Amino acid sequence: MQNHTHAHQKQVTNRLSRIEGHVRSIKQMAAEGRDCPEILLQIAAARKALDNAAKLILKDHLEHCLIHAVNEGKQEKFLKDLQEAIDHYIK
Amino acid sequence: MQNHTHAHQKQVTNRLSRIEGHVRSIKQMAAEGRDCPEILLQIAAARKALDNAAKLILKDHLEHCLIHAVNEGKQEKFLKDLQEAIDHYIK
Repeated sequence: MQNHTHAHQKQVTNRLSRIEGHVRSIKQMAAEGRDCPEILLQIAAARKALDNAAKLILKDHLEHCLIHAVNEGKQEKFLKDLQEAIDHYIK
Repeated sequence: MQNHTHAHQKQVTNRLSRIEGHVRSIKQMAAEGRDCPEILLQIAAARKALDNAAKLILKDHLEHCLIHAVNEGKQEKFLKDLQEAIDHYIK
């Protein structure tokens, strides 16, 4: 299921844009030798933002792609790929 | 303790540079409507890379900044800030 669209696709790319900018500013903080706990707090925030983007992708995936996969009789592959992604996420 | 240097400072900024580029490529994948589990795998990898950068910062912080804080009699503030950063990270 390549090159498909989702309800929250624009929101997901906007969030990833913000995370990219956030990581760039954290890199700048590290390069300037800023206070370590302050940098750790920002990394924790970027990590949380990645989790929230992942949750939004998963929501789209379950709402849109699952129906599409079932309609095409590809539910087994759908579940296998999803399981693999979740296994990577929670380890 | 602003604008100080660490043993792994260059490694930390290099890692954050790579994570920034990784997030940019994930954003591109999302904009192209690429397969959701594939995007989730990449987000999990970027998250893991952020964790590893945080571990390196923490290592520097404990090896370098703790001694510095003790020498300056600022160990209480050091522990308070570190505790706060860890609390944010693990929640």
